[in-house]
Amino acid sequence: MKFSCNRDNFTEGINIAMKAILGKTTMPTLECFLIEAKDDHIKLTSNDMQLGIETTIPAEVTEPGMVLMNAKTLSDYVRHLPQEKVEVEVDDNNTILIFSGSTRFEHMGLGDDDFPRLPEISFDQEITISQFTLKEMIRQTIFSISSKENNKLLTGELFEINKDELRIASLDLIRVSIRKIKLDKEYDHIKVVIPGKTLNELSKILSTDKDDMIKISFSKNHVKFEFKDTLIISRLIEGNFFNIDQMLKNNYETKVKVNKSLFFGCIERASLLIHETDKNPVVFNIKDGEMKMEIKSTHSSMNEDVTVEKEGNDLRIGINPKYIIDVLRVIDDEDINLYFFNANSPCFIKNKEESYIYLILPINI
Amino acid sequence: MKFSCNRDNFTEGINIAMKAILGKTTMPTLECFLIEAKDDHIKLTSNDMQLGIETTIPAEVTEPGMVLMNAKTLSDYVRHLPQEKVEVEVDDNNTILIFSGSTRFEHMGLGDDDFPRLPEISFDQEITISQFTLKEMIRQTIFSISSKENNKLLTGELFEINKDELRIASLDLIRVSIRKIKLDKEYDHIKVVIPGKTLNELSKILSTDKDDMIKISFSKNHVKFEFKDTLIISRLIEGNFFNIDQMLKNNYETKVKVNKSLFFGCIERASLLIHETDKNPVVFNIKDGEMKMEIKSTHSSMNEDVTVEKEGNDLRIGINPKYIIDVLRVIDDEDINLYFFNANSPCFIKNKEESYIYLILPINI
Repeated sequence: MKFSCNRDNFTEGINIAMKAILGKTTMPTLECFLIEAKDDHIKLTSNDMQLGIETTIPAEVTEPGMVLMNAKTLSDYVRHLPQEKVEVEVDDNNTILIFSGSTRFEHMGLGDDDFPRLPEISFDQEITISQFTLKEMIRQTIFSISSKENNKLLTGELFEINKDELRIASLDLIRVSIRKIKLDKEYDHIKVVIPGKTLNELSKILSTDKDDMIKISFSKNHVKFEFKDTLIISRLIEGNFFNIDQMLKNNYETKVKVNKSLFFGCIERASLLIHETDKNPVVFNIKDGEMKMEIKSTHSSMNEDVTVEKEGNDLRIGINPKYIIDVLRVIDDEDINLYFFNANSPCFIKNKEESYIYLILPINI
Repeated sequence: MKFSCNRDNFTEGINIAMKAILGKTTMPTLECFLIEAKDDHIKLTSNDMQLGIETTIPAEVTEPGMVLMNAKTLSDYVRHLPQEKVEVEVDDNNTILIFSGSTRFEHMGLGDDDFPRLPEISFDQEITISQFTLKEMIRQTIFSISSKENNKLLTGELFEINKDELRIASLDLIRVSIRKIKLDKEYDHIKVVIPGKTLNELSKILSTDKDDMIKISFSKNHVKFEFKDTLIISRLIEGNFFNIDQMLKNNYETKVKVNKSLFFGCIERASLLIHETDKNPVVFNIKDGEMKMEIKSTHSSMNEDVTVEKEGNDLRIGINPKYIIDVLRVIDDEDINLYFFNANSPCFIKNKEESYIYLILPINI
């Protein structure tokens, strides 16, 4: 096997394929890229058995072939090469030689026999959306997936297609985050749960350019993402996701409109008093025109007023400020709306179009 | 006690005084600032028993007084205050109230009885140099202090004044780093060892403006640094530092002049092959006009040539590339000079004026 390519293209491809390389494994092949040289490109494949990535890099291939190379080692070498032109040669013993300028790296590769190839799956349905939109939807919901492995479903995000609407949702047992967008046309119903890790890694390599598109295909057990020179296949999480619609309400007893950045500053100050040992809530005292926030810890207390527009009943309710901070961090609107029922019912943060809906359970006070 | 001051000045003072606050202690007073309001300023004092800091902040003092407040809590609160004007009130029970805009923090402070005041010491001799110069000298030598507490002296840096020369040096058992500058006049001989931690913390708050000066005063057991509104007192490390002059040599058998950035790139690539399990050296093969570098690990090898100007004998010598990287990182010269004797003697990296001298022991090959 023999090829030459551009160092920066090579590095870019390596960075993408690295997302499916686990840190330490007991199987050396899972720490490797499968490097295939063929036609006018090389293809890097990585597979951690949950998530598989294939990405191609333009190359001048003199002698086609395949080899396995430790991914971290390849990444370190290529990133540090002195010149843009990189030449790679692999002999029959899988000895890999990398040349650039007067640098010569030599590394013992492995044969490709044991490498787990990406599965051949027939996908039933596909949608195409903007990479930027998907990246945003993930950012705006992923923070409320559960990190606890004992309920596997909650470590993923619901992807649901209803006619011409895509809804992404995540929940732990205290809050729910939902984002919706309109699709270009109507599709058959899809309801799958994609692992949080897949979405996190995918999100890191998605473009921030609104015009760059991504194709998402679904099968019973897998989801596939295709964009530019890259293809990502992930297993889905099996099981029935919670019925989210049951948790949502359209009416309210109290509605509060508040300037986001004023509210954010205040909630951030309140969260300074949350120590690991005493998880006290912020108590919101909502009256006409003003929301008073108050929090107490063992040695400290803090209170502050924020001007608001209120509709409906006065209310006194306790909420963990960290959950509100998580939501305010991902909303870009200037003003936000909070909807309440009573001191024991969830608080909703949502916009008029309900393109985002956040639900947070209160704390008893 | 009652005063008002500017939030950003307050934050700046807090950041300085934080440098002598330990993370977790068994003495709550050591996690506190002593806050004193007097005349037209407040004074923050911190003391971790090795290092003590006093810094003043302009303030409008309505009622003088003193209180102890947890440093981290004060830092968190003040940094997050919504408005520039901060008002602080402390009542007779040491309850501290902090007001800014419509925010009101309340915190239980402590009386100042147990706080360890900074010692009153008479200092024998003082010098004044540029803060930037001191910061640079520390940066260029501190990396070779030892982190091992079993030889306390090596965890500090030698500060030695000989007539009109200040010399700073550090060493672990494999290398020595030395920086020298000329002083404005001749002084009495001084030879002290300042803890690495003191210099690290000091370095973080020194100005990068060459015109900002710092006064350094020495006594038998302490060193004092004074600049702008801040005073830092540190204990010295007791004992006789190694005789550095004995290790230095003025002649050489082989001299190599090499472009720093080319050399740096090559050594960085070589260091990729150093794994924790096999600490192999880079083997330097020095000949007329060229230096060939080679390194082998269990699964990999790398070699590269660099063009050099050589004087004296050919040489083959093994050196840990990490030690060379540490030196190259802090030298700003375009070309650097390496001086060798033989494969078993230290390598020297120094400039003509010997304002810096680095000594690195070779590895047997």
